[in-house]
Amino acid sequence: MAAPTKPEYKVIGTRPVRPDGIDKVTGRAQYGADIRQARMIYGKVLRSPHAHANIKRIDTSKAEALEGVKAVVTGADLPQSGDRRSDKSLNVLAADKALYRGHAIAAVAATNPYIADEALKLIEVEYEVLPPVLDVREAMRPDAPVVLDWVRTTSMAGTGEEPTNVAAKGGFNFGDADKGFEECDEIVEGEFKTKMVHQGYIEPQACTAMWNPDGQLTVWTSTQGSFPVRNDTSEILDIPISKVKVVPTEIGGGFGGKIPVYIEPTAALLSKKSGRPVALRLDRTNVFEGTGPTSGTSIKAKIGATKDGKLVAAYADMAYEAGCFPGSSVTLGAMAMFAPYDIEHVKIDTYDVVVNKPHVQDYRAPGAPAAGFAIEQLVDELAEKLHIDPLKLKQMNSSHEGTRGPGGMPFSRIGQEECVEAAMNSEHYKSPLEGPNRGRGVASGFWFNVGLRSSVNISVQPDGTVNLVEGNTDIGGTRASLAMQLAETLGIAYEDVKPMVVDTDAVGYNDVTAGSRTTYATGMAVNKAGLNLIEKMKGLLAAKWSAEPDAVEFASGTFSSGENSASFREAAGIVAGPADATLNATGEVSAGVLVGGGFSTHIVDVEVDPDTGKTQILRYTVVQDAGTAIHPSYVEGQMQGGAVQGIGWALNEEYYYDEEGKMANASFLDYRLPTTLDLPMIETVIVEVPNPTHPFGVRGVGEVSIVPPLGAIANAVYRATGVRQFELPMSPRRVLETTHDLG
Amino acid sequence: MAAPTKPEYKVIGTRPVRPDGIDKVTGRAQYGADIRQARMIYGKVLRSPHAHANIKRIDTSKAEALEGVKAVVTGADLPQSGDRRSDKSLNVLAADKALYRGHAIAAVAATNPYIADEALKLIEVEYEVLPPVLDVREAMRPDAPVVLDWVRTTSMAGTGEEPTNVAAKGGFNFGDADKGFEECDEIVEGEFKTKMVHQGYIEPQACTAMWNPDGQLTVWTSTQGSFPVRNDTSEILDIPISKVKVVPTEIGGGFGGKIPVYIEPTAALLSKKSGRPVALRLDRTNVFEGTGPTSGTSIKAKIGATKDGKLVAAYADMAYEAGCFPGSSVTLGAMAMFAPYDIEHVKIDTYDVVVNKPHVQDYRAPGAPAAGFAIEQLVDELAEKLHIDPLKLKQMNSSHEGTRGPGGMPFSRIGQEECVEAAMNSEHYKSPLEGPNRGRGVASGFWFNVGLRSSVNISVQPDGTVNLVEGNTDIGGTRASLAMQLAETLGIAYEDVKPMVVDTDAVGYNDVTAGSRTTYATGMAVNKAGLNLIEKMKGLLAAKWSAEPDAVEFASGTFSSGENSASFREAAGIVAGPADATLNATGEVSAGVLVGGGFSTHIVDVEVDPDTGKTQILRYTVVQDAGTAIHPSYVEGQMQGGAVQGIGWALNEEYYYDEEGKMANASFLDYRLPTTLDLPMIETVIVEVPNPTHPFGVRGVGEVSIVPPLGAIANAVYRATGVRQFELPMSPRRVLETTHDLG
Repeated sequence: MAAPTKPEYKVIGTRPVRPDGIDKVTGRAQYGADIRQARMIYGKVLRSPHAHANIKRIDTSKAEALEGVKAVVTGADLPQSGDRRSDKSLNVLAADKALYRGHAIAAVAATNPYIADEALKLIEVEYEVLPPVLDVREAMRPDAPVVLDWVRTTSMAGTGEEPTNVAAKGGFNFGDADKGFEECDEIVEGEFKTKMVHQGYIEPQACTAMWNPDGQLTVWTSTQGSFPVRNDTSEILDIPISKVKVVPTEIGGGFGGKIPVYIEPTAALLSKKSGRPVALRLDRTNVFEGTGPTSGTSIKAKIGATKDGKLVAAYADMAYEAGCFPGSSVTLGAMAMFAPYDIEHVKIDTYDVVVNKPHVQDYRAPGAPAAGFAIEQLVDELAEKLHIDPLKLKQMNSSHEGTRGPGGMPFSRIGQEECVEAAMNSEHYKSPLEGPNRGRGVASGFWFNVGLRSSVNISVQPDGTVNLVEGNTDIGGTRASLAMQLAETLGIAYEDVKPMVVDTDAVGYNDVTAGSRTTYATGMAVNKAGLNLIEKMKGLLAAKWSAEPDAVEFASGTFSSGENSASFREAAGIVAGPADATLNATGEVSAGVLVGGGFSTHIVDVEVDPDTGKTQILRYTVVQDAGTAIHPSYVEGQMQGGAVQGIGWALNEEYYYDEEGKMANASFLDYRLPTTLDLPMIETVIVEVPNPTHPFGVRGVGEVSIVPPLGAIANAVYRATGVRQFELPMSPRRVLETTHDLG
Repeated sequence: MAAPTKPEYKVIGTRPVRPDGIDKVTGRAQYGADIRQARMIYGKVLRSPHAHANIKRIDTSKAEALEGVKAVVTGADLPQSGDRRSDKSLNVLAADKALYRGHAIAAVAATNPYIADEALKLIEVEYEVLPPVLDVREAMRPDAPVVLDWVRTTSMAGTGEEPTNVAAKGGFNFGDADKGFEECDEIVEGEFKTKMVHQGYIEPQACTAMWNPDGQLTVWTSTQGSFPVRNDTSEILDIPISKVKVVPTEIGGGFGGKIPVYIEPTAALLSKKSGRPVALRLDRTNVFEGTGPTSGTSIKAKIGATKDGKLVAAYADMAYEAGCFPGSSVTLGAMAMFAPYDIEHVKIDTYDVVVNKPHVQDYRAPGAPAAGFAIEQLVDELAEKLHIDPLKLKQMNSSHEGTRGPGGMPFSRIGQEECVEAAMNSEHYKSPLEGPNRGRGVASGFWFNVGLRSSVNISVQPDGTVNLVEGNTDIGGTRASLAMQLAETLGIAYEDVKPMVVDTDAVGYNDVTAGSRTTYATGMAVNKAGLNLIEKMKGLLAAKWSAEPDAVEFASGTFSSGENSASFREAAGIVAGPADATLNATGEVSAGVLVGGGFSTHIVDVEVDPDTGKTQILRYTVVQDAGTAIHPSYVEGQMQGGAVQGIGWALNEEYYYDEEGKMANASFLDYRLPTTLDLPMIETVIVEVPNPTHPFGVRGVGEVSIVPPLGAIANAVYRATGVRQFELPMSPRRVLETTHDLG
């Protein structure tokens, strides 16, 4: 199917400089820890040294007595409604149980950070240490220690009666999988395991809170969503949201990990007690131990095909660690797992499992990479058994418009086929890979395009430029991508739009920058605001031109009616001159959640050192459907960034726990992110199959690129070594263990 | 005429706490000098020691060589288009002529303020000193030194040919004044003089500028109008307004004096040269010598009446000092002068005159107090001669709806009659004043209600509260008075509206906070935004309630349609819940300039010490028409504040110049503002004659209260001493000189 012809855009598709660029490269941009307030003091958090322990007693009196200490808080300072505090609240400061090593137990604020550190040592906590449960499948066993005594299994069948770590049992059932497998000529299966990994954002969490005596709380923080921080802070502290203002700083990465609140309510409480602004900043070990990484997983999967290569049936049993509270991404992983393929019979069982580790949090395409690690290896194995080129097999079985999408609804126009085709036609795939210990792998992946709520204000300035006020954290260049969409809508230059991200008081509600939604959904709001503005200007021009209100037309950046015509800037001068009212417009959207997904296919060449087990990435290509690439450089950046994170996850990254539940590698020295020295330049091929639900055809591009690397690299390692990899990371040690008989 | 019945309001007319109150009383509010930026350096300005001098040479090389100096600028660094830089630009940094003592000549920025001070001393300036001209009538003489060689007299007759200090000749002519005076039985006249006085705002000008390498200029400044600062800065620096963001800080008073830019372009240039943020802050002497006070004036006036007390004819010859560039408030003074009275025949000649003093700037009801000093004494004298109570005479001749207003158009519904009547009925006026050396004076005054452009955004928060984003500096409590109008419009509590003042990028264009316009015109924009929001909500509710779009009604804070009804908060929950788009609305107005003026009548009792000449205010009452008093406490505050400034002007304040044009009293020790020890509690009587041009009947209340005090106190001093006062200030020395034969 040929991709629809793309309209002629003037601004969209160009690569202008980002408005926040200079501030970021010159160090002037303000990140979370750059906030300074008069009389500001410094908060520090005391964390549990045990992965599982009852807290018998906390004595803060010695800490309070230390000179320079202005406030000490514990979980008892947080309000409670009902039987117990909410999970969110318990995660911010523990109640009577420490649920993971690193769980926040108490916090102090002092006139300098060193005094605060000293004060932490003076807090006496009496623990009753309990045996921890650290692995998802172990936690599912009936004899496992129970992490939370109030958890019961919820499922379609109802709610269980016994305390358990299996918080939810769910899944999907399309067609008849048993019958489907009977029709298959080839069936492959395996059990795949991934470890907990962290988003690895460069900037640790950092916030400053000021609780004013009039009850107004201001929080400056590095977050993906100032409005969600407002909501959570208000809920945890039991104060109205109108009393909370969240000022988003620039953000040094988030990838899903900077959605929840970890420190904001604590800083607020410390400020309330001390009457001073309180800065609370995590260090890297705090980040690893005290914030939310993504789940460790265990997936048993099976797929089958006819001998001519038609995928017929698939089954998966997916168990995801939720960390210390229910709520992993297992359902999203299940929805994404088979999405690239048109398979008639699918059955998936999912398990959301509580363990004594930090509560998991979203990480770029949450839930999907682990699923991809499983399914993409099985599809590869099937291709090998059927003697079909692995991309050819994907092409034969690609999802497309009308086939069943995640959750059961048919897909609208999507680009999986186009991506596979572009991969097959790529210079990379056509180039032979030669040499010993080398292998090439391919994999596809799917991720959603979340919509949700966005809201912007625009105003015409007296020189005809337009200010764009929005509320979404700019992580990947959305100031630029939104300004470009407004410029395109109004028929003006990119440079004539001035975008800015403001605080929660100064713009309408905006959902989080996550789910690949900002350029997509806020872009729709921007377009709507632009169209509203044009309508307003048509009416005003009609009055100035003595025309009928509907006689003024707007096309290609020009208003016209009869003999009159005016560019946007000229029109602004006519209707928003010094004698006229100023011109504003708003745009709001509440977009659906399943709105035309994004697909990506990756090709990777590796060389595995047979002596050390080290896998070197030789070449890597990302092919991805961007719908319409608003700013191609930023799309490419997302494609490359996701691939790199996937490479790290595939080869090096893991939470390495000892038996007592202590993470042994809680620093960037020991938790090994890939660096530029480990990587080739990641090649990119942008495919553009416009998203029919968006006025400019945009698809979210921020996440899907992390889905294929795990499977693609595993497939490449298999080709290089002849051994399938069922566990991540494929570290030198694991590759050696699986390719050599080391006994 | 009875005042119209006021509607039943729920929020308007109450006295809630201001949203910015706690921050201001706890010292947390950020004023101009509170801004701190990373790597910020400090600017200082070199000022002319001469009132009039050619600048032959400026050598900045030694200053530039001083360690710690990062930038030095002079007028040569400002762009020029055409023959010469604009007056605005020349006032910021002089070109080849210093036009007043204190005129900015050069500026430096250094790593600390002390080095900057040292550097100023190293700048060598060679002056050719010229004779200055310092008095308005002297400057009008043909042989006077010419301040600006390009000034020609403009008038209805065209533009003059000869260089002159009389920049403009204008006036008004209604009826036939010559014929009118012939009909009079009593004619009184006099020549009145006032000195230049300063607004005396407590906070000196202070700004910080950062010129980013990408061309974006950010200016934090204490100003009455962030948008006018943006306009002027952009114009003077010849950069697009879209490259300038002005962030308004809190403001410690302005009264008209913080409208123009004095230091912002200089700080910007210093930042551009140094690559650093530059803080530039004036001290009090800089403020007196280098910013714009109000004109010294000379007014020759004459009025006549029939013997039964009908005012028939009036004449005035008004000459106002413009300072070193054309542009005094003489025309506004002329329009305001006779406005309280219905007089058939009026002729006014006006002169705008350049002198070697700082360029004058607006000061609360600019131009009107000096005019009031003249006319109110003449009306008082007439009352005495006709044996009519002075308030009775005012009542007999009051302007009212339909009589001629300033500029010739008839007044709409106004409240001069009601104010005079309320003054007559006041406890103060009915109480006898006894004792020697005591006297009671009364006076009326008029001031405009400026409209101009305002623009606000409002957004409904998920808890049903509403954020109000506006762009007007809050000087007298406008966050509260605007929030109250929005609450009234939406039928919600004051506390449910969260108002905030944002920077020039984050809201549509807003004219300056001046001309008593903010509560009036921005209040109209707020009301409009509220009505737009209600319309939007009606449509959304109709969809939810399956009703016709126009079947939903809104009254008394409740939406209803058939059996369905919902309060605003409930309705917000129905149409702006988590599944819905966020709700925003905008409101814009461009209101007329002459829109229902404000009137005030004052009563003052004084005692004059016959030995020292010192005048003590014994009792003072301000009666004023507020239209509708949104927040009566703030209305009373404005009434009291204006009266106190008028008292200072009447009794103590003046720019005291030596012959060379040096101000001899350029500090608050020597320039004597009234303190609480000098004053009784100022009593207030709010009259409410709703303004028909405003949805809630608001009239501007910020300025008119400074108009009557000069005349009222002069009349009281006359009653106490038997001697008329023709010159201000009525200092002890002047009262002694006029009441004793000191020769």
